[in-house]
Amino acid sequence: MSSASRNGSTKKTYSFLGPIGTFTELALAQVAEAKGAIAHPVSHVQDAIDDVIAGRAFRAIIPVENSVEGGVTATSDALAANPNIRIYGEYLVPVKFDLVARPGVALTDVRVVATHPVAYAQTRAWLSANIKKHTYLQSTSTAAAAADLLDTDGDHSIADAAVAASTITKHYKLKVLAKNIGDNKNAQTRFLQIGLAKGAAPKATGKDKTSVIVELPNDRPGALLEMLEQFAARGVNLSRIESRPIGDQLGRYRFNIDIEGHVEDAAVAEALKGLHRFSPKVIFLGSYPRADKKKSVHQGNNTNAAFAAAEKWIAKL
Amino acid sequence: MSSASRNGSTKKTYSFLGPIGTFTELALAQVAEAKGAIAHPVSHVQDAIDDVIAGRAFRAIIPVENSVEGGVTATSDALAANPNIRIYGEYLVPVKFDLVARPGVALTDVRVVATHPVAYAQTRAWLSANIKKHTYLQSTSTAAAAADLLDTDGDHSIADAAVAASTITKHYKLKVLAKNIGDNKNAQTRFLQIGLAKGAAPKATGKDKTSVIVELPNDRPGALLEMLEQFAARGVNLSRIESRPIGDQLGRYRFNIDIEGHVEDAAVAEALKGLHRFSPKVIFLGSYPRADKKKSVHQGNNTNAAFAAAEKWIAKL
Amino acid sequence: MSSASRNGSTKKTYSFLGPIGTFTELALAQVAEAKGAIAHPVSHVQDAIDDVIAGRAFRAIIPVENSVEGGVTATSDALAANPNIRIYGEYLVPVKFDLVARPGVALTDVRVVATHPVAYAQTRAWLSANIKKHTYLQSTSTAAAAADLLDTDGDHSIADAAVAASTITKHYKLKVLAKNIGDNKNAQTRFLQIGLAKGAAPKATGKDKTSVIVELPNDRPGALLEMLEQFAARGVNLSRIESRPIGDQLGRYRFNIDIEGHVEDAAVAEALKGLHRFSPKVIFLGSYPRADKKKSVHQGNNTNAAFAAAEKWIAKL
Amino acid sequence: MSSASRNGSTKKTYSFLGPIGTFTELALAQVAEAKGAIAHPVSHVQDAIDDVIAGRAFRAIIPVENSVEGGVTATSDALAANPNIRIYGEYLVPVKFDLVARPGVALTDVRVVATHPVAYAQTRAWLSANIKKHTYLQSTSTAAAAADLLDTDGDHSIADAAVAASTITKHYKLKVLAKNIGDNKNAQTRFLQIGLAKGAAPKATGKDKTSVIVELPNDRPGALLEMLEQFAARGVNLSRIESRPIGDQLGRYRFNIDIEGHVEDAAVAEALKGLHRFSPKVIFLGSYPRADKKKSVHQGNNTNAAFAAAEKWIAKL
Repeated sequence: MSSASRNGSTKKTYSFLGPIGTFTELALAQVAEAKGAIAHPVSHVQDAIDDVIAGRAFRAIIPVENSVEGGVTATSDALAANPNIRIYGEYLVPVKFDLVARPGVALTDVRVVATHPVAYAQTRAWLSANIKKHTYLQSTSTAAAAADLLDTDGDHSIADAAVAASTITKHYKLKVLAKNIGDNKNAQTRFLQIGLAKGAAPKATGKDKTSVIVELPNDRPGALLEMLEQFAARGVNLSRIESRPIGDQLGRYRFNIDIEGHVEDAAVAEALKGLHRFSPKVIFLGSYPRADKKKSVHQGNNTNAAFAAAEKWIAKL
Repeated sequence: MSSASRNGSTKKTYSFLGPIGTFTELALAQVAEAKGAIAHPVSHVQDAIDDVIAGRAFRAIIPVENSVEGGVTATSDALAANPNIRIYGEYLVPVKFDLVARPGVALTDVRVVATHPVAYAQTRAWLSANIKKHTYLQSTSTAAAAADLLDTDGDHSIADAAVAASTITKHYKLKVLAKNIGDNKNAQTRFLQIGLAKGAAPKATGKDKTSVIVELPNDRPGALLEMLEQFAARGVNLSRIESRPIGDQLGRYRFNIDIEGHVEDAAVAEALKGLHRFSPKVIFLGSYPRADKKKSVHQGNNTNAAFAAAEKWIAKL
Repeated sequence: MSSASRNGSTKKTYSFLGPIGTFTELALAQVAEAKGAIAHPVSHVQDAIDDVIAGRAFRAIIPVENSVEGGVTATSDALAANPNIRIYGEYLVPVKFDLVARPGVALTDVRVVATHPVAYAQTRAWLSANIKKHTYLQSTSTAAAAADLLDTDGDHSIADAAVAASTITKHYKLKVLAKNIGDNKNAQTRFLQIGLAKGAAPKATGKDKTSVIVELPNDRPGALLEMLEQFAARGVNLSRIESRPIGDQLGRYRFNIDIEGHVEDAAVAEALKGLHRFSPKVIFLGSYPRADKKKSVHQGNNTNAAFAAAEKWIAKL
Repeated sequence: MSSASRNGSTKKTYSFLGPIGTFTELALAQVAEAKGAIAHPVSHVQDAIDDVIAGRAFRAIIPVENSVEGGVTATSDALAANPNIRIYGEYLVPVKFDLVARPGVALTDVRVVATHPVAYAQTRAWLSANIKKHTYLQSTSTAAAAADLLDTDGDHSIADAAVAASTITKHYKLKVLAKNIGDNKNAQTRFLQIGLAKGAAPKATGKDKTSVIVELPNDRPGALLEMLEQFAARGVNLSRIESRPIGDQLGRYRFNIDIEGHVEDAAVAEALKGLHRFSPKVIFLGSYPRADKKKSVHQGNNTNAAFAAAEKWIAKL
């Protein structure tokens, strides 16, 4: 039992990229099965994965993509490097930043603002407009920036305020000076639930996504186009494609790909088999329910029923 | 018994596009299984097919394509219209024309040359160079042109010589005035052996061809390209594509297609299933050994072994 | 002057595939510029083309495609073989067949029906249903079948009736026994107006078609797909593609292609230039107004304006 | 004068991602024109770009891609956000790490190793094998880790050694304990020289690369494949494609693309014009000589000569 090894109880452990009070915790809160489980914050994506591999955690929640920052390369690469890991779910968390301070501090008092660089980049427009002469103090996370405000240890933060996730006040006695100050009100981060590749995989729901990693054969031009035609020939839509270096030399890439549909969809299964023949290396990362709950549709006449009819036709010949 | 119904014997009957002495007979001579069978000449491609459908013939040999004239549309369309017909073999016959005459006639005596228009078109260069002031008399077949030379019935042909298949002298006591007078020394005609779609189909030999007829969906541009991608995505090569009108209105076409490989090849089977989903109508005409005895290769990593490995991989997931 | 050489007048001559009373004459009647010109019937497509090349005719009207029979291969191949010929227009003629007879003959009297084999094939259903025990007599053209009915020369046709174009009664004193007896009421034949490749080409109207002949490079599989991508990459739609043998050996094809749009359309011009690079041989046959008068649209953002904007953008760089 | 504004001299200024002693300085050393110029280290990619935009620097040298870490997203996104910036050159720098220490310190003395996290990730295998019980101390750059070793300010670094670029000893009096300790001996970083989009662009050399940023139209599936076909139809090879979020919402991407060839190559120009029509937004980043000095070849018959011949052909029609 992953949980027993940690705390002697029978509760399951979910590791997540911490510290508490960051957006990953909000993603974890969306995992219905994790209600009542142990939430274990870690400092790095790889630590979360290591917890899963070593059995210290049942599952891990890690960010994979942000609508402003793009892919989380640590996650993309860790998925490529750890063959026994599968994706069990995805979660979307709106990125809402608040400006928080110690009780008694007013907006007009603020001179120094602490936060994580990514958060600063996404709130700079508001800060520049509303606290014109502020100084920026870099923190290792938005939660740390907030926590440091309350550090009573003599040498507490010199910051007057912090930019943090809007849930930060659940954890710290801080006052919100301004709500939702992000430049992009639609900003979102997408998280994955990962676990060991054993036991029951998520069933097809008709609203699924499948993730794979594909290396391109490097002996011919047009290989990326050929790879995409493996999907197109079966009407399978891509929702995301991210190139990452294979690492052995400049100019060789693999692609982390999310597609619409479940590996139990005949169209997806055939496309994956096509990739398997085409590519020197394909890693299957799992099929799981879409966070946006939209129906996954295969272009053209590529439903399971159409596949079954074609199968029947060829069998008769 | 197809043969019994014709002649009371137990011999099988092979209908062929006649008359005797034409190139189709040479194709029939290549059919090993037809040795000792009854060879039944007919006047039209459809008659040969009707013989097969009605059980009057076991098989029929019909031309499908000539390297100079192109597709035999009567055959292409008959294959589309008769769903119970399958192709069991293909045969290549070099098109060699000789100039023949009654014994005693010399080349310098020739003024009028009879032959079929297609044969005339293919020997016109030689005739123009060697019998400068000849007159051309049109016949219904090269064999008929030759036979008429010997018609002693008072009103025999006014022709002095005939252009006919070089085998004509096996059937008629004619003298060869000039051998192999065709403009294109590599001219060939391709013939098909057709029969009812029942019983054992030709086994995969690794040197096979598969023929299908595919209608394009007519609701979108680029449909032909999409169809070809069904083959390309599985590395399947086309050896021939011929467009024919569907017939209901101008601008709607179906395609008679020959591909390399056998329906038992996983690449071919998957491509055909893809076509079945893509197209409003696909007709499978059969898989059969290639006349040129070349190996049928699927581009990329699309051997049966590669398909089996991909199947195994996906099954494990 | 093409006309002067023929008759000393200043009238222009239009050769057409005759004889008079066939469908080609109806196509010629659609040519506005040919009003008052000399209409010269010929027996073969090549004769019509020869008239143009030799200057005996200004233009020629020849069939290129029938909705039931498919391409007229004599025309397709003649266009490939005569490099100085261009297409100046296309015309659609509904194929309507009537059953005609000498005055005094009633439908119930008819036992023998004469016509051209193509016409017979297209009226067989009606004839079988309405003249159950008729005998079919083959003629060289529908007009000849009709004309022979009136041949008073002692040995006139043994036919009681003829199937001919519904305009036949303009030329011969024949009685219509039944109108529009074709199996397919939408049958059409498409005709081309061809002339020498000199002087003014038809201007772009926005409702144009362009015809080309393209040989495939024979050194690689997938060449047909690559060729089609030259059109697709510029959003150019194909309205027809017909494969014809190059003639030197079996398995080598060229394609007669009709595309939507005019060579003055930037999308079409760029696609043709792409073909010129891709193909060992491209023949441009001309741009001309569409017979169906529909607008020619290029898929995607491929209007002349979009091309001009892209050109301007790249020039600025 | 960009230089005058900084120091009153007439020397040009090259800003680069510093501090001195990092790999970017090695890239700058490859820029022949920068010999004798002022090298100005900055802390962030955006600062280097800002220097160029504000005229404080003539050019800037920034990393764009590492063979192990992948794309430098700050660079990719800055190129998308600053429309007046162009790329003038690219440079490859082998990533060679040395372990350095203060004089007098031996390898066996080392307990604490300081370096940048990326450098640590790339040398962890060697460090684990050779200094089994070392502790890792995170620095803001490899150069800072090295410099801190010499900090005599009472509170100097607690580290015993640093992992730094092998050129660090040019700047600091440090001793090399071990040379080239990177896990991947072929690791490279690719750098760009950027400047304002004015004045003379690099001429075509036949060994060029062109960079663009392309947004996909978001109204249809298969848009990425369509985009790649714009290159394929002109035989243009991609050397790199990197997806980045457009930023307005999850699921919308733009692609930073490097292609072989120069915008003066007809094939490249036509492909770019095709992109301009296809895409809602294309940013041209420049054509510049390849660092690897390989010839840039366009697939198929797509040389400038072939384009010129096609142009001539179409002009004659």
